[in-house]
Amino acid sequence: MIISMRPHASKEEVDHVCERIREFGYKVHSIVGEERVVIGVVGVGDVTACLESLEATPGVERAVRISAPYKFVSKEFKQERTQMDINGLEIGGSEFIVMAGPCSVESERQIMETAEGVREAGARILRGGAFKPRTSPYDFQGMEEEGLKLLAKAREATGLAVITEVMSDTDVRLVAEYADIMQVGARNMQNFALLKSLGKCGRPVLLKRGMSSTIKELLMSAEYLVAHGNPHVLLCERGIRTFETATRNTCDIAAVPVLNEMTHLPVILDPSHATGKRSLVPAIARAAVAVGADGLIVEVHPKPEKAVSDGAQSLTLAGFQSMMSQLQPYIRLWKEARLSELAAAV
Amino acid sequence: MIISMRPHASKEEVDHVCERIREFGYKVHSIVGEERVVIGVVGVGDVTACLESLEATPGVERAVRISAPYKFVSKEFKQERTQMDINGLEIGGSEFIVMAGPCSVESERQIMETAEGVREAGARILRGGAFKPRTSPYDFQGMEEEGLKLLAKAREATGLAVITEVMSDTDVRLVAEYADIMQVGARNMQNFALLKSLGKCGRPVLLKRGMSSTIKELLMSAEYLVAHGNPHVLLCERGIRTFETATRNTCDIAAVPVLNEMTHLPVILDPSHATGKRSLVPAIARAAVAVGADGLIVEVHPKPEKAVSDGAQSLTLAGFQSMMSQLQPYIRLWKEARLSELAAAV
Amino acid sequence: MIISMRPHASKEEVDHVCERIREFGYKVHSIVGEERVVIGVVGVGDVTACLESLEATPGVERAVRISAPYKFVSKEFKQERTQMDINGLEIGGSEFIVMAGPCSVESERQIMETAEGVREAGARILRGGAFKPRTSPYDFQGMEEEGLKLLAKAREATGLAVITEVMSDTDVRLVAEYADIMQVGARNMQNFALLKSLGKCGRPVLLKRGMSSTIKELLMSAEYLVAHGNPHVLLCERGIRTFETATRNTCDIAAVPVLNEMTHLPVILDPSHATGKRSLVPAIARAAVAVGADGLIVEVHPKPEKAVSDGAQSLTLAGFQSMMSQLQPYIRLWKEARLSELAAAV
Amino acid sequence: MIISMRPHASKEEVDHVCERIREFGYKVHSIVGEERVVIGVVGVGDVTACLESLEATPGVERAVRISAPYKFVSKEFKQERTQMDINGLEIGGSEFIVMAGPCSVESERQIMETAEGVREAGARILRGGAFKPRTSPYDFQGMEEEGLKLLAKAREATGLAVITEVMSDTDVRLVAEYADIMQVGARNMQNFALLKSLGKCGRPVLLKRGMSSTIKELLMSAEYLVAHGNPHVLLCERGIRTFETATRNTCDIAAVPVLNEMTHLPVILDPSHATGKRSLVPAIARAAVAVGADGLIVEVHPKPEKAVSDGAQSLTLAGFQSMMSQLQPYIRLWKEARLSELAAAV
Repeated sequence: MIISMRPHASKEEVDHVCERIREFGYKVHSIVGEERVVIGVVGVGDVTACLESLEATPGVERAVRISAPYKFVSKEFKQERTQMDINGLEIGGSEFIVMAGPCSVESERQIMETAEGVREAGARILRGGAFKPRTSPYDFQGMEEEGLKLLAKAREATGLAVITEVMSDTDVRLVAEYADIMQVGARNMQNFALLKSLGKCGRPVLLKRGMSSTIKELLMSAEYLVAHGNPHVLLCERGIRTFETATRNTCDIAAVPVLNEMTHLPVILDPSHATGKRSLVPAIARAAVAVGADGLIVEVHPKPEKAVSDGAQSLTLAGFQSMMSQLQPYIRLWKEARLSELAAAV
Repeated sequence: MIISMRPHASKEEVDHVCERIREFGYKVHSIVGEERVVIGVVGVGDVTACLESLEATPGVERAVRISAPYKFVSKEFKQERTQMDINGLEIGGSEFIVMAGPCSVESERQIMETAEGVREAGARILRGGAFKPRTSPYDFQGMEEEGLKLLAKAREATGLAVITEVMSDTDVRLVAEYADIMQVGARNMQNFALLKSLGKCGRPVLLKRGMSSTIKELLMSAEYLVAHGNPHVLLCERGIRTFETATRNTCDIAAVPVLNEMTHLPVILDPSHATGKRSLVPAIARAAVAVGADGLIVEVHPKPEKAVSDGAQSLTLAGFQSMMSQLQPYIRLWKEARLSELAAAV
Repeated sequence: MIISMRPHASKEEVDHVCERIREFGYKVHSIVGEERVVIGVVGVGDVTACLESLEATPGVERAVRISAPYKFVSKEFKQERTQMDINGLEIGGSEFIVMAGPCSVESERQIMETAEGVREAGARILRGGAFKPRTSPYDFQGMEEEGLKLLAKAREATGLAVITEVMSDTDVRLVAEYADIMQVGARNMQNFALLKSLGKCGRPVLLKRGMSSTIKELLMSAEYLVAHGNPHVLLCERGIRTFETATRNTCDIAAVPVLNEMTHLPVILDPSHATGKRSLVPAIARAAVAVGADGLIVEVHPKPEKAVSDGAQSLTLAGFQSMMSQLQPYIRLWKEARLSELAAAV
Repeated sequence: MIISMRPHASKEEVDHVCERIREFGYKVHSIVGEERVVIGVVGVGDVTACLESLEATPGVERAVRISAPYKFVSKEFKQERTQMDINGLEIGGSEFIVMAGPCSVESERQIMETAEGVREAGARILRGGAFKPRTSPYDFQGMEEEGLKLLAKAREATGLAVITEVMSDTDVRLVAEYADIMQVGARNMQNFALLKSLGKCGRPVLLKRGMSSTIKELLMSAEYLVAHGNPHVLLCERGIRTFETATRNTCDIAAVPVLNEMTHLPVILDPSHATGKRSLVPAIARAAVAVGADGLIVEVHPKPEKAVSDGAQSLTLAGFQSMMSQLQPYIRLWKEARLSELAAAV
């Protein structure tokens, strides 16, 4: 921690701050500058509590944390990439993973047709919502358990693993019976009750970045999962909210290499929510491969204009197939780079 | 709804769109412009489903909803202000209500001292968190039920009503046993499982605006509460996330008159979270009175530098008292204006 | 400055950084923490150059400036409020100043009628654009010099001082012949060629905050004006760009007390651009008085629906008059507070 | 245009609006819905003026423009890509163009060394600032004409074309004597005096997106250049300002395919300003190639830690060389796709 005092802070104020720091078990290094006193804080203790206290103490202008507020998810804690095995599929390693499927599970026919279509085109994981977070109470809220059963049926028929969203800690046990990966939606990234419950669910979790969450906050929410017992976390960039309205969200593509510098967890990109527009999805998918994401999660629907939700951003099965072919040479470049990185790490 | 077609949409595309609209039970009015066809949609039906479908239909450039997506919370549905009685206290009427107290309940002594102090200064409702949403899993998470009991004790001693946060649908019943008003935090504004559960809790709910939520989304979340059975909703502006870092959030002061134009629900302003800095709280509190909010919710702590959370933005008891005296002439102007508005409405 | 090194920075990297700091003429205080080395930099020198260099130096994680990057505009440089005399009118002192008028000067009749109307209602300065920054090259670009002449004529007839916008350093001399206050628009806040030229123009300058500029950047642009010779700067908050679309911009009301803590320059609020909607202007104007702004700049037009620009946010003359009456009791409270502050400062 | 009236607008209000529309020379199509009247406006006229007027007219809730506000820069006006020849180099065609060089021209030795280094690595255009827009009046403001001369000297020695920034309309003539491409910085994207002057400068212009400008506003500023006589405009995405602070700006990667759908002008990406951090530049450069940008503009400095500006985001010469080799297979994929697109367009 670094504490900078106000320019004209009195000696009493400086002394009081130093005393408070020592009460928290830290050591104090004062630096007397031309304009103000700056205090370096060294040692081990409850950083947050100390910071909170100092920010509220008279004479203090700013109290800044230097060390990261998360631990288990950081590269400093663990250098090598976290890989996880999901139904024989390795995520975070040398395979670029594509998850695809409809926004909502709507019927047996719809989910089966989609599952077969996306598997043929090269997807390895089926996405589909059974519990839907909808802005309006009057919109379709999902098929719930019936939807989960249809997903399980599609898994059986196609061999694809299944990812689906869970919206409340009360549903964690139920969803975990059916899903291979538990998805936390952007609106729930800081639903701490849900995160705590998912820490003990025994399934990998894909954690979507909140639409106005910083990368640091995303890592803090991932830390919740790991600290509560679940090391299998996938992070997902899905666009953030900005002033620009040409796209549904603004895809923060740099979040991928930033996360690769900060954490060992795999990073998935969602080009469908990031853009909100079908025609933009393939270009953003190529960008995701090029920047080094570990995979994609893409919305696909057999008949987008009949979809109950997110039709405008869903690819048709033909569109998805065409995108997947286009992606192949990029994925080959990705694989070369990844293999040489993994070889170097040994 | 208004559907604008792409400039060179074919006749087949336009016909297909019109047909789709009719399938949803609407009537169609085509307007053939110089550059493109625009289609007006009239009638009663499932607007969202129709919009979603059209946005995904070939040839469509944009599909825009004209009517508001919420109903019960709108001024069109109900002109007169919603007033609610809380322990003999009327909110939304001719009294400007101040809620005050610590961020977290920390101990009996702390909450008792604060409750007495804020009541003396003129507050009518005691705030205090027993369940705390914290960004880090390592930070203090609240005293939980023990904290609720202390709040109840403070209510008994002082006569103040109690407002406290509920973070999960599993806790709703427990919190409702102790609280007079249930608070939904900014991070949970779109926790739809929680909102549904609060629809049936039998207590008024203060709904904080999400830090990157639009005013329309705030109203949609309020609509969830009302549509699920709870008409007693207080809206709360607490600052939004922007690029500016001089304050913790950016206080969207215009949200107050905007909401007053759009809804009949009372609007509370939280100058503590909106600024994050003690010295700015009184000025923003004056602004809140001046723009016509129905009340304030303010963080107060007997010893901010010993607070376990939000010390930097908490007023001392003396600071709160001084702010309350300063506010009196503004509140008198507020009351005059409100009384003449209420008289005119009769 | 505080330099924090990466967690595993080598001794060579730390030594090299210390050496670089000394080359810039500073003294070094190393603090060896549990995880990393932090270096305090003390002394007088070219802070920006040193920071830029260190940020680019291997092993450095972050280089943070502690002292403010501006000097003349800061409260540390000068405690007492900057007051300026404009045609016998004192700004920044014990009078709350209202500037009002149309977005654009359109005709002699329009500007004369407006000038008389706003003066009667209590405005002291006439605003009106002769050079208009328009997003589209096809929109009305202003009456230019002819508009300036009409403003001068209105000043003669009414005794109001005149404020008008200047958009390019090539026009500074011309505009200064007619205007009492030179206005820099939000889009030009960082037009440094213009700022340098205005430093020598001999007229007070009202500097509007850029729509995505931080408060610190606003102060840096003000510093340009002062450093180039012009101490008479008025700052203007006019709303910033955020994700919210219910208002044209988001009025950052807290910017007023924040600026009052940081600078001695007067602060004006523009409720018209901050909201973009006529019906919201009076509430925001009241808030501006309540938070302690030094004045308002408001758009008024005799027939808003015939205005060539900004009609939707312009008050009618009757609307302006009504707002001004409503404001009187708030201005009285403002004046009391200001007078006692000025008395205390003596 | 589509005008939606307020829910309870009176017949008189509707009639008055229709009359106003006809005064502007348009035809009116009223659609009477369940809740409100919506009016479609058809014909040719001054859209902006009409919109402005209607927004200010009683009873109107919203007036929405359907047609794009720009013309010459749109795909509707011209389908085929705009290609331009710069010193024998074709931009916008089948070559991916890399511009590279230091933020500021600092000395003959620095610019010569950089020019030779970046040319060897494959850059075709040399960037370097002689006039520098600096947030602080105390920072290095550029070598001005002397810097321009050094750039010309480097061009002579290496055969690279030269791009450099112009900050004021008074400097346009001078800069045009030396530069092959005139650069407009993000802070000047809406400096309309500068844009008008550049319309007649006879040189291609690279127009950087303002840091809080929408894509539509970027196109409007490009329209200024074209409407004032200059069809040779390159658009540049350089990151936008958001709440995220892990990067200097947020790279809006989707802006590239969005622009490719909306305009025929070439799009360049600046990964240096978009991220502000050297280590992130190569990943974002790969993404730029993958999404289909026409080129890159990259900051390179022989000794970043001795750079007077932007050192932290500048690549070393070795770093640039390594990035360029890495990019080659991506550029090959880019070229294949572009050639087949151009062939299809014939």
